[in-house]
Amino acid sequence: MFSLEDSMQIVEMRVHSIAIADPPLRSSYGLHAPYALRTILELISEDGVTGISETHGGDAIAQGFEAMRSKIVGSSAYRLAGSLISLIEGEPQGTNLERSQTFYVPGENPLDASRRLYSAVEIASLDLIGRSLGQPVCDLLGGRVRDAVPFSAYLFYKHSGGGGEGADARADEYGEALTPHGLVAQARQMIAKYGFRDIKFKAGVLDPEIEIETVRQLRGAFGPSVPVRMDPNCAWSVDTSICVGKTLAQELNQGGYLEDPTATMEGMGTVRRKLLDEGIDVPLASNVAVTSFADLAEAVRTDGVQIVLSDPHYWGGLRQTQHLGKLCRSFGLGLSMHSNTHLGVSLMAMTHAAAATPHLSYACDTHYPWQSGEDEVVVGGRIPFVDGCVCISEKPGLGVELDRDQLARGRERYARCCYRKRDDEAEMRKHIDPAWRRILPRW
Amino acid sequence: MFSLEDSMQIVEMRVHSIAIADPPLRSSYGLHAPYALRTILELISEDGVTGISETHGGDAIAQGFEAMRSKIVGSSAYRLAGSLISLIEGEPQGTNLERSQTFYVPGENPLDASRRLYSAVEIASLDLIGRSLGQPVCDLLGGRVRDAVPFSAYLFYKHSGGGGEGADARADEYGEALTPHGLVAQARQMIAKYGFRDIKFKAGVLDPEIEIETVRQLRGAFGPSVPVRMDPNCAWSVDTSICVGKTLAQELNQGGYLEDPTATMEGMGTVRRKLLDEGIDVPLASNVAVTSFADLAEAVRTDGVQIVLSDPHYWGGLRQTQHLGKLCRSFGLGLSMHSNTHLGVSLMAMTHAAAATPHLSYACDTHYPWQSGEDEVVVGGRIPFVDGCVCISEKPGLGVELDRDQLARGRERYARCCYRKRDDEAEMRKHIDPAWRRILPRW
Repeated sequence: MFSLEDSMQIVEMRVHSIAIADPPLRSSYGLHAPYALRTILELISEDGVTGISETHGGDAIAQGFEAMRSKIVGSSAYRLAGSLISLIEGEPQGTNLERSQTFYVPGENPLDASRRLYSAVEIASLDLIGRSLGQPVCDLLGGRVRDAVPFSAYLFYKHSGGGGEGADARADEYGEALTPHGLVAQARQMIAKYGFRDIKFKAGVLDPEIEIETVRQLRGAFGPSVPVRMDPNCAWSVDTSICVGKTLAQELNQGGYLEDPTATMEGMGTVRRKLLDEGIDVPLASNVAVTSFADLAEAVRTDGVQIVLSDPHYWGGLRQTQHLGKLCRSFGLGLSMHSNTHLGVSLMAMTHAAAATPHLSYACDTHYPWQSGEDEVVVGGRIPFVDGCVCISEKPGLGVELDRDQLARGRERYARCCYRKRDDEAEMRKHIDPAWRRILPRW
Repeated sequence: MFSLEDSMQIVEMRVHSIAIADPPLRSSYGLHAPYALRTILELISEDGVTGISETHGGDAIAQGFEAMRSKIVGSSAYRLAGSLISLIEGEPQGTNLERSQTFYVPGENPLDASRRLYSAVEIASLDLIGRSLGQPVCDLLGGRVRDAVPFSAYLFYKHSGGGGEGADARADEYGEALTPHGLVAQARQMIAKYGFRDIKFKAGVLDPEIEIETVRQLRGAFGPSVPVRMDPNCAWSVDTSICVGKTLAQELNQGGYLEDPTATMEGMGTVRRKLLDEGIDVPLASNVAVTSFADLAEAVRTDGVQIVLSDPHYWGGLRQTQHLGKLCRSFGLGLSMHSNTHLGVSLMAMTHAAAATPHLSYACDTHYPWQSGEDEVVVGGRIPFVDGCVCISEKPGLGVELDRDQLARGRERYARCCYRKRDDEAEMRKHIDPAWRRILPRW
């Protein structure tokens, strides 16, 4: 029977642009740079409690937060998500193709910029409220529906190197992996360390024949109890997508899926229809054709997507992830979770989102195994995984605090490195092939 | 930086079955009884804070709460909605027709019983948390997106009488209204008192010709700036529905709608398609064909419903109302809110739900004008309306507290009266026509 109203007023906002080492991972977008960019947002309340969140990096999003400063400072943490709602409830601009990630690496699409900003503010507000009340974030959202959130082993074709540059280079924990055999070895190593029970395989990099063989060897190595999801990020034509779907009809079912084999909702719908015509029910997932609520009606109408990849960083935060879950359940769509290169603050936001979203029907993706303790910014270092899961504890908020020294190192790395936005195509040209261009479809 | 964990543990649950006077209102279901039944739920935390909610009445729901007692007492208010989620996330049983309200008055459909129980528990938990923290409920849900929630003038054909029986009879504030002229007079009186800017007209009672004339006279009296929604609760055939839609094409547009003209989603879809074929775009709303998330895919597929009526009492509480709003927005559906006979606790839960649901695109329904201060159970008596709106204040929780004397009177009325469930058909036979049966379609 006391009022926390005043104590929840936000009196300060801090935006930290950081860089973290990232290994040379490949995807259809190109190559990961030696440093990935992240942003840590801090909201500080009148009584000195700090709420944090983590999102995409670079100068643009940092400027975006600065532009919102006057709307954030002075507000109540309880009302911030409501007062900023126009950032995510306005009619989305552009066509589905423009909104989609088809032509943008995640975090660089101007049409979802306001949703990304909103997400980070909502999550930091929830962390602030949770820390003030001694409540975990998921319990501010109706209460956990699961205590342990499963993640998948995110496999990449990879060049040698552990990320970072010069004296700041990281050890290459996993080594080069540019063959089916190399991917299986990577999977064994990652699963042995983290206990993952699902495999996410980033395809769209090598010839489809090699990638098909990779999936087969993964299945051979782990058996059908470890579902495989394959994600070529639109690298294939409709015909190639159908061909791969037919060839891997067994391997990509039984809890797995084929994610964004080809570009556009129409393309996805055609792939789905033609596979079904041949009696093949490989579910199609998407984080490219479907990246916002505005895409869902078309996804349902065309049946181009059977599984939606949520992501609290993109879709508007934790409550919007819950909305998405209910929507997917209502329309018979599965729900998984997308990941980008991230640290422990994002990992815990994803974990709390999953813990508070009943319908989450697939293990979440995470890039976390690709980062190291040298770059982690949370107190105590790396978040532990148990049997492939991150556990929700009784700790308040997101359950993590910032390690100020590590944060300062991340800022220094940002100041020192040459990157201000993500451009995997440029990295590909710089390190691998000066003539490389992203071509859709490539095969 | 303190923990409220223990103080949010629920140590007691109280269930109050009450009866309140209700005037003899008519609908296609029959006649309102002299008493409507409601239930007040109290959840009391370890440190003595009480959270409340109000829902449907009668013995069945009270027994339902008792059956849940062991799952509620001992739980944290923060985790209750999550721990009980299986009550609302299980696959709905039965067909759409069985799930729907076609054959049941609201509150008496066994297939939504668990959702009704869940709703009341979620709302009382939120009130408890809000009161403990000094925060309004809508601000626990992301924060208000509006401060004033508009309601509509809910007009009924009505026999003379104000409700209640014998010495407990209420004054007949509005008098008999069984003609177009009578409905217009009722509307004038209600709008003058409350300031409503929308009209909800409960039809399906008199011959469609008379009801068409009623809408025309309402339009004549108030003009196009006061939108009219018309709800015959499935009383009409597909052909009659099309005929009324064509005849009232102007009057039921411009912010109004035609709600559940006919039974079944197929029927609704046919009405919609045939009206569109003739160039008539009267939107169809529903609280009968669509009463759960499980109905929405079919509603979208058939285009049988353009506006969904939410109701925090039926759909699973306030967070589920927010989910529904986002879903409706994503699929281009409008969102309104359904009402049953209720007191101030329900009114405030509806108001907070609406305040925290950005997409609410229509004024909410409310039966509140049909009740009186003699039956109100909140401290201070009747909730005020300003220009047809209920305002969200800075008061914690739902913003209302129980008047213990009035609650005791409601319980005494319940003990004394002969009603233990709602049966509008039986009341119709008892008071109006011994041979009356509900026939669908009647016209």
